[in-house]
Amino acid sequence: METGQIIHTKTKYLFFVCLTLSIAFCLTNCKKASVTTEKKETHTEPLSSWNSEPKGKIIDWVKAVTDSTSTFYIPVSDRIAVFDNDGTLWPEQPFPNQLVFAIDYLKSNAAQHPEWQKDPDLKVFLNENPLQLKDATKTGLIKVMSISHLNITETDFNNNVKNWIETAKDAKFKKRYKDLVYQPMLELLDYLHQNKFTTFIVSGGGADFMRVWTEEVYGIPPYRVIGSYSDAKFEMIDNKPVITKISEGFYLDDKEGKPAAIHRFIGKVPVFCGGNSDGDLAMMQYTAGSKYKSMNVLLHHTDSVREYKYDLKTLSGHLEKGLTEAKKNNWLVIDMQKDFLKIFPFE
Amino acid sequence: METGQIIHTKTKYLFFVCLTLSIAFCLTNCKKASVTTEKKETHTEPLSSWNSEPKGKIIDWVKAVTDSTSTFYIPVSDRIAVFDNDGTLWPEQPFPNQLVFAIDYLKSNAAQHPEWQKDPDLKVFLNENPLQLKDATKTGLIKVMSISHLNITETDFNNNVKNWIETAKDAKFKKRYKDLVYQPMLELLDYLHQNKFTTFIVSGGGADFMRVWTEEVYGIPPYRVIGSYSDAKFEMIDNKPVITKISEGFYLDDKEGKPAAIHRFIGKVPVFCGGNSDGDLAMMQYTAGSKYKSMNVLLHHTDSVREYKYDLKTLSGHLEKGLTEAKKNNWLVIDMQKDFLKIFPFE
Repeated sequence: METGQIIHTKTKYLFFVCLTLSIAFCLTNCKKASVTTEKKETHTEPLSSWNSEPKGKIIDWVKAVTDSTSTFYIPVSDRIAVFDNDGTLWPEQPFPNQLVFAIDYLKSNAAQHPEWQKDPDLKVFLNENPLQLKDATKTGLIKVMSISHLNITETDFNNNVKNWIETAKDAKFKKRYKDLVYQPMLELLDYLHQNKFTTFIVSGGGADFMRVWTEEVYGIPPYRVIGSYSDAKFEMIDNKPVITKISEGFYLDDKEGKPAAIHRFIGKVPVFCGGNSDGDLAMMQYTAGSKYKSMNVLLHHTDSVREYKYDLKTLSGHLEKGLTEAKKNNWLVIDMQKDFLKIFPFE
Repeated sequence: METGQIIHTKTKYLFFVCLTLSIAFCLTNCKKASVTTEKKETHTEPLSSWNSEPKGKIIDWVKAVTDSTSTFYIPVSDRIAVFDNDGTLWPEQPFPNQLVFAIDYLKSNAAQHPEWQKDPDLKVFLNENPLQLKDATKTGLIKVMSISHLNITETDFNNNVKNWIETAKDAKFKKRYKDLVYQPMLELLDYLHQNKFTTFIVSGGGADFMRVWTEEVYGIPPYRVIGSYSDAKFEMIDNKPVITKISEGFYLDDKEGKPAAIHRFIGKVPVFCGGNSDGDLAMMQYTAGSKYKSMNVLLHHTDSVREYKYDLKTLSGHLEKGLTEAKKNNWLVIDMQKDFLKIFPFE
């Protein structure tokens, strides 16, 4: 892809800008986190990494809605549970992992593209500490995301993500991103699966980026992963079918876009929703409107030692209205420092 | 919805026109079909309504790809099977059932809209024999589809379809549409489900229209139903979440749009594809490109007595290139007259 091309087709990236805007604002919010040693544990008790109070509330709700004699019973086919990804199932600080993938892609391919070092917007990503990036511009972010995500075949993109997720490690925790997921949320997914819920990811992150690894990491297959996306083009090239990811038709799966995407991709109102930011508020309101007794769980990042502590001061994971609404509507707010006995599987 | 509004926002319906275009062309192609008496039968043998030759080919393929010792083995998570709906799982003549739903909606609501009788494009749908509609215009078709499908809440639309599918009967067979599905295809879906395939509908029809009844009729839940769609808008109205179907962002799930939608909604290349028209060719080519040994099954409508006989002379279900490609690539072509021992469950 020609860098010049990107600039000329800038108008097409209106929504792409929205996605990267949140990344831009959180670039200056790097926080320190402790490095812990790995320790594998197996639990058979449900939700064993949860504090007793929220655990009790979740179990009570699941028992009520899966008991066929209860007035709150939900038939299996309507047990739809949706989860945000960044900040809900895995960390989103100092910035979303998908941006790290994009920067890593840029670096890996820089030798074949000497023009990138001459582009002021791009060279900052090649040369600066990826945890700071204080000189990054929005234009630069759009370019990095475009270079790594667009005008590439489905097969090549999937291979790139696969190779990255198998090896790339988070700079703070020194763990692979795929191993750096929240243990209590893995237990919650398991518990819901055991109780015949059908789980979905509904994330502002790229659907194609997540789909490569969600089946292995969360037990959620690609067709149950909803995220932001742009159009795909189908062609027969040399008598072979080729799908190419293109820039047109960008859909931002965030805020009001989340319940709209749930309508589009799932076609049923969820009865359970897990999220952590104001970007998840609309899908929680949608879930609260279910004809069944539904449950909303809102993660509040409060642990500056074991993970990150944030809500108001960052746009990636900005939590303000969500907290007010959660308290008003009696949704379950998780104080991660207190309620997550363990944050990562390796602790 | 104001009829005037529809005309003023005509430009938004560019793709909507494409969808209804096919309906327009087949309006003059009404064919006679025999009425048969209902007879319920239960079969435990797989594919018992299929002739032995195609049955053998399907079973051989399923056995090969599900045998973990075979070189053709496909892991469960990659057993993705896609099916067209109109003309593949249920009839599409004299025109798609979804148009009958739209006309029935118009008739049911005509008393509250005296202006429809004054509109030359609309009154033909209110007054003419719905099996002929020789004076129907494309503008009229777009209006009927818009009135019945757009600017309506998710809840109201679902209720309308639900009420219709429970009661509306096909004019030729005198059967409810939900009972007028192909018995051999129900058996094929069952057989694939038993062998741990995940089935999807990938249809040019409206996703929202199909999702209401596919779970009951085919055992395929809404989130595995891909179809044409337009945007949905989320709002909180009087403190309640409301999803409204709007006209913007129409996606036509046909031809090259089918594999592109499979990328968007499923995120994996199918290993099995069932279709019946040139609209399904691209997704068959995509399926043929799987890294696994895949299978394409193409239904050829050849039975003018028990169902309909058509291929070239109708746009809804036009089959020409598909047949050539199928023969060239050794895909399984089903001669419905010969290969479907039984067409409908009630036979």
